[in-house]
Amino acid sequence: MTAAANNPGVRFSLVVLGAGPGGLDCAVEAARLGLDVALVERSELGGTCLNRGCIPTKLFLGATECVHELHAQAKLKVVSGEISVDLPALQKRKEQLLSGNRKALEKRLADSGIALFKGLGVVTSSDTVTVKTENGPMAIGFDRMVIATGSRPTAFPGMTPDGDRVLDSDGILELTEAPGSLLIVGGGVIGLELGRFFSRLGAAITVVEALERIAPWEDPEVSKTLASLAKRDKWTLLTGQRVASLVSKDGQAQLTLESGELLTADLALVATGRGPNTSGLGLEDRGVVLGRGGFVQVDEYLEAAPGISCIGDANGQAMLAHAASHQGVYVARLAAGRVEGPYAPGPMPWCIYGAPESIRVGRMFEELTAQGLTPKVSRSQLAANPIAQSHAMAQGFVKVIWLDGRVAGVTAVGHGISHLVTQATLMVRDSWTNEDAENLIWAHPTLDEALLHALTAEPTDS
Amino acid sequence: MTAAANNPGVRFSLVVLGAGPGGLDCAVEAARLGLDVALVERSELGGTCLNRGCIPTKLFLGATECVHELHAQAKLKVVSGEISVDLPALQKRKEQLLSGNRKALEKRLADSGIALFKGLGVVTSSDTVTVKTENGPMAIGFDRMVIATGSRPTAFPGMTPDGDRVLDSDGILELTEAPGSLLIVGGGVIGLELGRFFSRLGAAITVVEALERIAPWEDPEVSKTLASLAKRDKWTLLTGQRVASLVSKDGQAQLTLESGELLTADLALVATGRGPNTSGLGLEDRGVVLGRGGFVQVDEYLEAAPGISCIGDANGQAMLAHAASHQGVYVARLAAGRVEGPYAPGPMPWCIYGAPESIRVGRMFEELTAQGLTPKVSRSQLAANPIAQSHAMAQGFVKVIWLDGRVAGVTAVGHGISHLVTQATLMVRDSWTNEDAENLIWAHPTLDEALLHALTAEPTDS
Repeated sequence: MTAAANNPGVRFSLVVLGAGPGGLDCAVEAARLGLDVALVERSELGGTCLNRGCIPTKLFLGATECVHELHAQAKLKVVSGEISVDLPALQKRKEQLLSGNRKALEKRLADSGIALFKGLGVVTSSDTVTVKTENGPMAIGFDRMVIATGSRPTAFPGMTPDGDRVLDSDGILELTEAPGSLLIVGGGVIGLELGRFFSRLGAAITVVEALERIAPWEDPEVSKTLASLAKRDKWTLLTGQRVASLVSKDGQAQLTLESGELLTADLALVATGRGPNTSGLGLEDRGVVLGRGGFVQVDEYLEAAPGISCIGDANGQAMLAHAASHQGVYVARLAAGRVEGPYAPGPMPWCIYGAPESIRVGRMFEELTAQGLTPKVSRSQLAANPIAQSHAMAQGFVKVIWLDGRVAGVTAVGHGISHLVTQATLMVRDSWTNEDAENLIWAHPTLDEALLHALTAEPTDS
Repeated sequence: MTAAANNPGVRFSLVVLGAGPGGLDCAVEAARLGLDVALVERSELGGTCLNRGCIPTKLFLGATECVHELHAQAKLKVVSGEISVDLPALQKRKEQLLSGNRKALEKRLADSGIALFKGLGVVTSSDTVTVKTENGPMAIGFDRMVIATGSRPTAFPGMTPDGDRVLDSDGILELTEAPGSLLIVGGGVIGLELGRFFSRLGAAITVVEALERIAPWEDPEVSKTLASLAKRDKWTLLTGQRVASLVSKDGQAQLTLESGELLTADLALVATGRGPNTSGLGLEDRGVVLGRGGFVQVDEYLEAAPGISCIGDANGQAMLAHAASHQGVYVARLAAGRVEGPYAPGPMPWCIYGAPESIRVGRMFEELTAQGLTPKVSRSQLAANPIAQSHAMAQGFVKVIWLDGRVAGVTAVGHGISHLVTQATLMVRDSWTNEDAENLIWAHPTLDEALLHALTAEPTDS
């Protein structure tokens, strides 16, 4: 703790509540631009992303990629073998890696001259945050404040995670013993990625999704491919099915569907969504409006009340680490007087990791036709791509959505497809024509060529 | 064979010699632009790339990725297990895949209305190619001709591949039994990629390289990382060592260094380079000049003589499939009157595949300083990248070379780094500033962020 932190009369030009990716990047950028900055974090540096989200999930998927690659080749009898995963060892590695990353973040803050206050911060007056530190409450004055308090797993009534057989994503990421069977409520990104990990560990996976398809926010063709490949891995997919109750009973997770059907498994994961950490922080008293689900309402400058901005999951605009970081940098620049206009993020990349992976950037076909527009679509199939072929995972496609001869959106699904996401983001941001694709030498053989071939394929009306 | 092929008086506006990537793409583009096109191929469609080069090598590396991923995680005790590779089964899969790809190419030609002539084509007059078909010689008239005859492995005297214990890349790609030990002469891309494959199959690898480092055309820091990781895989690297002789003897490959030292192994791979297929084709009689090593000399329009262009490996400009294709499309457009200016390829991406991978695009630091320029360099380390961490292969870096605040070149080395090559090519082509990197939302967590972090790191003088 810095000297400043021991001084109850301390004041900063910017105080950031929450040290997840958004809060951290906001604080570092503000400090770089010359503001004196305090960062308040009640738990660990790195937020959900580093500690209970993207990073441990990707670590689990990366560590077990060998299992998936082996299975794919073994189906073709090209290789044979067995791999066993030591989950306690993986958890230990996770802890080492996360702790190393947290130390790197701590150093980054120190190098930037940012004062870090550990404890829950509550807004107690129009220019004061009071932090409940280990040594008692400490008042920190601010000129501007940024809410970057993130989110936590939420559950619907009747399926509350109990830490026994019914877990949320926080809980399941701490397991040291893999379940033989796993019920997943919610077929979105969290459910799919964690399902893939436990599937590689041998768990029988059942996904219950209330909407009509898994990955319901993705392009319907993408959902279809994801479902087809999940079924090939022997997953049971129950879509359009609502859960009446989910409880731990007799050492099992017992799930009753609204249809009356009873499902049991060793464990259940509730992955139905995330809600913002915005209550009990004194925000409403400062004029901050909490909207539906408790998300902070912000204007086009990401401002929630005079002098108070809100970034990241807490405002619910795009619950992604990179969205939070991008918003954080904008808000820091706004506070430092370096930008003036409203927040304009440009196209936002969305990924689902594991195998297969999927990406989505920009506007999708259905979205555009619903607006009365007449987009066109061009596609390439991974079956024709030599890199996808070499991994014996050639199911999937790249789909480009065009408006007036320019790229409006890209979505894709297949092995390793997340590697195309930055290029796709660039193409959407710059509204490429198919000539733009041609005016570039694309290395051969690469997975990227699937993007080239989709860009240069003849567009059709659907 | 089309009707036209049975007519000895047949004439085409464009005749392409060689159906590798360059010749194929040239022919298809010319046909698309309305020219009547003939394609002459003495062997199989797809050329070296598909049949004896990039594609089978990438298939072998992709099929054994599980072995490499397993080893990396097993070192951390996170997983354990054994994988055995069935090389005959892999060869069978290779044949199926290549034959499927060749059929797809054949269909592409047919769909494009291109006449395919099978047999060696020799230029016999100023407007005639004579093809030695199964049914005897056939004369084909042309207005323009394109030499796209590609290249083949070459060896220095004293180390001629004999098909017994001393093989070239063509021969080693046909093996159905893995050697216990493999001597590789030549530490370039072919030697390294094939070394990695046989290393995964358990072979003890020794590389003999005449120059002072492996991957001698790459950035010295990249070579250093490649060497360090090869040594970690227990490879023996003998750099700055010349081969006096390499022969098959007593069922072994016996290699004598100029120092007098004798090395033996189950097999040896001669991977010292490739030479053009340009002799015996009647080219010199048509005014085509064969330069050093037999490469066809071309002007800035890729023209070798009036009405005769040369693309791809045969001209030696950049011995890469995508370079050949790009040149082929240019030459087709030139022939069709769609372009007029000289050939301007833009930055050329170079990759070495396997593990680790490396990429190079644009101009490198040493190249620029040698020209008296004062480039700057910025870097990021893969050790800080969560995707590299998740694969337990976090050695490597991304290095950006700057001139006057704009990206002049990018090189990188590490796990999966070939996935960055298209983005890097774009950045070099468009001479990015570091603001260009910031004006884009980069998905998190991705390997791509290593590129972002290199782009936004503080540049230094070396």
